[in-house]
Amino acid sequence: MKVVKFGGSSVASPEQFQKVANIVLADRKRKFIIVSAPGKRHDVDRKMTDLLIQLADSVAEGRDDSAAFASVMERYQEIVTGLSLEKLFVSEIQRNLQETIARYRHDRKRLMDSLKASGEDNNARLMAAYITTLGQEAYYVSPKEAGMVVTNEPGNARILPEAFERIGTSLKNREGILVIPGFFGYSKEGHIVTFPRGGSDITGSIIAAGVEAEEYENFTDVDSIYSVNPKLVRNPAEIKELTYREMRELAYAGFSVFHDEALQPVFHKKIPVCVKNTNHPEAPGTSIVSAREPNGYPVVGIASDKGFCSINITKYLMNRELGFGRRLLEILEDEHISYEHTPSGIDNISVIVRAHQLENGKEERILQRICTELLVDEVHVERNLGMVMVVGEGMAKTVGIAAKAANALAEAGINIKMINQGSSEVSMMFGVDDYQVNEALTALYHAFF
Amino acid sequence: MKVVKFGGSSVASPEQFQKVANIVLADRKRKFIIVSAPGKRHDVDRKMTDLLIQLADSVAEGRDDSAAFASVMERYQEIVTGLSLEKLFVSEIQRNLQETIARYRHDRKRLMDSLKASGEDNNARLMAAYITTLGQEAYYVSPKEAGMVVTNEPGNARILPEAFERIGTSLKNREGILVIPGFFGYSKEGHIVTFPRGGSDITGSIIAAGVEAEEYENFTDVDSIYSVNPKLVRNPAEIKELTYREMRELAYAGFSVFHDEALQPVFHKKIPVCVKNTNHPEAPGTSIVSAREPNGYPVVGIASDKGFCSINITKYLMNRELGFGRRLLEILEDEHISYEHTPSGIDNISVIVRAHQLENGKEERILQRICTELLVDEVHVERNLGMVMVVGEGMAKTVGIAAKAANALAEAGINIKMINQGSSEVSMMFGVDDYQVNEALTALYHAFF
Repeated sequence: MKVVKFGGSSVASPEQFQKVANIVLADRKRKFIIVSAPGKRHDVDRKMTDLLIQLADSVAEGRDDSAAFASVMERYQEIVTGLSLEKLFVSEIQRNLQETIARYRHDRKRLMDSLKASGEDNNARLMAAYITTLGQEAYYVSPKEAGMVVTNEPGNARILPEAFERIGTSLKNREGILVIPGFFGYSKEGHIVTFPRGGSDITGSIIAAGVEAEEYENFTDVDSIYSVNPKLVRNPAEIKELTYREMRELAYAGFSVFHDEALQPVFHKKIPVCVKNTNHPEAPGTSIVSAREPNGYPVVGIASDKGFCSINITKYLMNRELGFGRRLLEILEDEHISYEHTPSGIDNISVIVRAHQLENGKEERILQRICTELLVDEVHVERNLGMVMVVGEGMAKTVGIAAKAANALAEAGINIKMINQGSSEVSMMFGVDDYQVNEALTALYHAFF
Repeated sequence: MKVVKFGGSSVASPEQFQKVANIVLADRKRKFIIVSAPGKRHDVDRKMTDLLIQLADSVAEGRDDSAAFASVMERYQEIVTGLSLEKLFVSEIQRNLQETIARYRHDRKRLMDSLKASGEDNNARLMAAYITTLGQEAYYVSPKEAGMVVTNEPGNARILPEAFERIGTSLKNREGILVIPGFFGYSKEGHIVTFPRGGSDITGSIIAAGVEAEEYENFTDVDSIYSVNPKLVRNPAEIKELTYREMRELAYAGFSVFHDEALQPVFHKKIPVCVKNTNHPEAPGTSIVSAREPNGYPVVGIASDKGFCSINITKYLMNRELGFGRRLLEILEDEHISYEHTPSGIDNISVIVRAHQLENGKEERILQRICTELLVDEVHVERNLGMVMVVGEGMAKTVGIAAKAANALAEAGINIKMINQGSSEVSMMFGVDDYQVNEALTALYHAFF
């Protein structure tokens, strides 16, 4: 059995609903369907979730909410009418929204979470109803019924460990196609609590792990994951297959296909993920797997990101000082700074961090602490660094990858400020000046693809 | 004023004593002379220090020490006779050695330290006497008189902070050439305590810092420091000038010109060091300075070392776990493991350590702890790694260095397993298989020189 998740643009309009239904009905293994709230129908459209946030804000701030309310209802109206569903659905949605507003008018966080969640929830109800009209047995299943128990942090839910077993028990043996809203779960106290944004991916991943699906299909609006950000390089190569590790390295820097933590549940169960296009379902898509056969291409993709800085520390005989690195990291941890890499020489170490973490006086305090607590000879911050990551399993075992990459950068006149490649690694990181990141990305892309 | 240190081979025979005296007398600034014990006169010769260790062992173990005693005395006899010094010196040295043996016969550590120190001490007395015979005012100064107060750890002395001022006070205003034995100091309790081996360099460096010398000349038996280990590459380029930082990076791996900690005192006072050849004093030698002008060559030298291993750790979402790196280093510190580098990806980190540190069950224990305390997905040790370091200030600012290095390695068919280059660094580290280290070194040497 497969878990199939449809993103916002896949369920944005009656036409998209029809495509989704066709996809679901085309494969009998597609049993667990996760839907997002209606997304954008065109470039200048607004997402349902944004409309709902606007509605929640209007209510909470005591402003006139009728326009916001109307724009929410309009979207549902369009879907119900377009799919010739019973008009009753519209009035039911309207009544539910009004009840939610009445109940949480003075509890802004719950109001926000409940209204946001309604985007997915109502869409799931409509999808189940629509599939039923096509003659297939299909049911809406609420996250509560499904067993999606989460922590009680509005807007930042985390799945509880016991949820997976509950999900398996409650869903595995049910008949028909089950349509489950993404993006939220229920706390033990019975509250609706939403995941961080992009959370429908999380729901799909959790359900897939809970029912031990053979595959987690993730339908979005692109044919595949690309080897480089298509906004930066025109018509980049499609990736047919990549490993979780490769996905993580790419997702880190400039690839926003998945929410950071979304794949963790399927990763742990080694369930393959397939990214496909709702608008072009016959394209093979991209498979994300726990291990893959070498395909002759050591590099699978190239990612980039900007806005880093490097804290550069020098101390004579540093490498003879047991505990130096640990004490340095302790200072950063103490200041709630997370770091990316720590390239080091004999008497020097650089700590690469995202620059925004050093704002509001933190930089001065950290430099001061490094000076006085570690008695270093010199410490300074280098700003405006970017990183380009060349990613691929098996890269580490291929002679000449570093040469090819370094040559491409040298030929483009780009100075490499840092390099980081570990023994078991699937990526090679090049630190360059921020302003040269896009050039570096392009040069590397053309070298490897 | 200069502090001038002569290594063992520079003071191994009467002929070498004459060379040293000529060097000292050739420059009126050469006022503070540090001498080692007599070194090897030819390839199969034995060093005085080794003879003295043998003597100490014989005494301590109650064996017949007459042969060992005779071989020590023979060396002094040769020097005294060869330089036509008074015969009295020989009998004085003999009496001193006998007294030392009698006093410490039952205290092996003190016996060892006192006998070892006598090699330098007697040589300093003979050198002062010899220079005097040449018509120059010259005095032997004992480390005690000089103010060399050290910690009371036999064989592992460390200079005490107050020593520097004492040295300045006791030596700066004295007349004549002052000859001071290297390798040992006195504890506050009045004991002779030796530095770790190679410690005459340490004495010279401490005296230079104490008297605030304008230069520390270090005379040995090579014309200069070479850009690569001459045992591995034939006739390598000489280095005219390098910075302390470059020296440290080179000294780390395969360059044994200086004892690791020897340069710390002069480093802190920014006193330049000049390495010269007693047998060829007209050669310019190598200057080690705190900063140097770029000379158009970004790479100053290439070093290598073997016998490393890499602890490779993978954990999904590692980079989102604040404190992961710190807790990992804490485990290593706890197990008294010092590490070299920690190249990292998004969800993985490698810790490079010297392999001998993981013996005697430590490896199993550390892997176990990493598993259970850090809940990693995977951890394993990769063995037989070597490192090649390309060293040079300004390298980081030159486009194409990494490309040149990586190309040279690729052309030699060498797979790069790790790369480490930080933002402010003077070195670029390439990890390769142990068995390819020498090939890698040669390939890099020919690329840059």
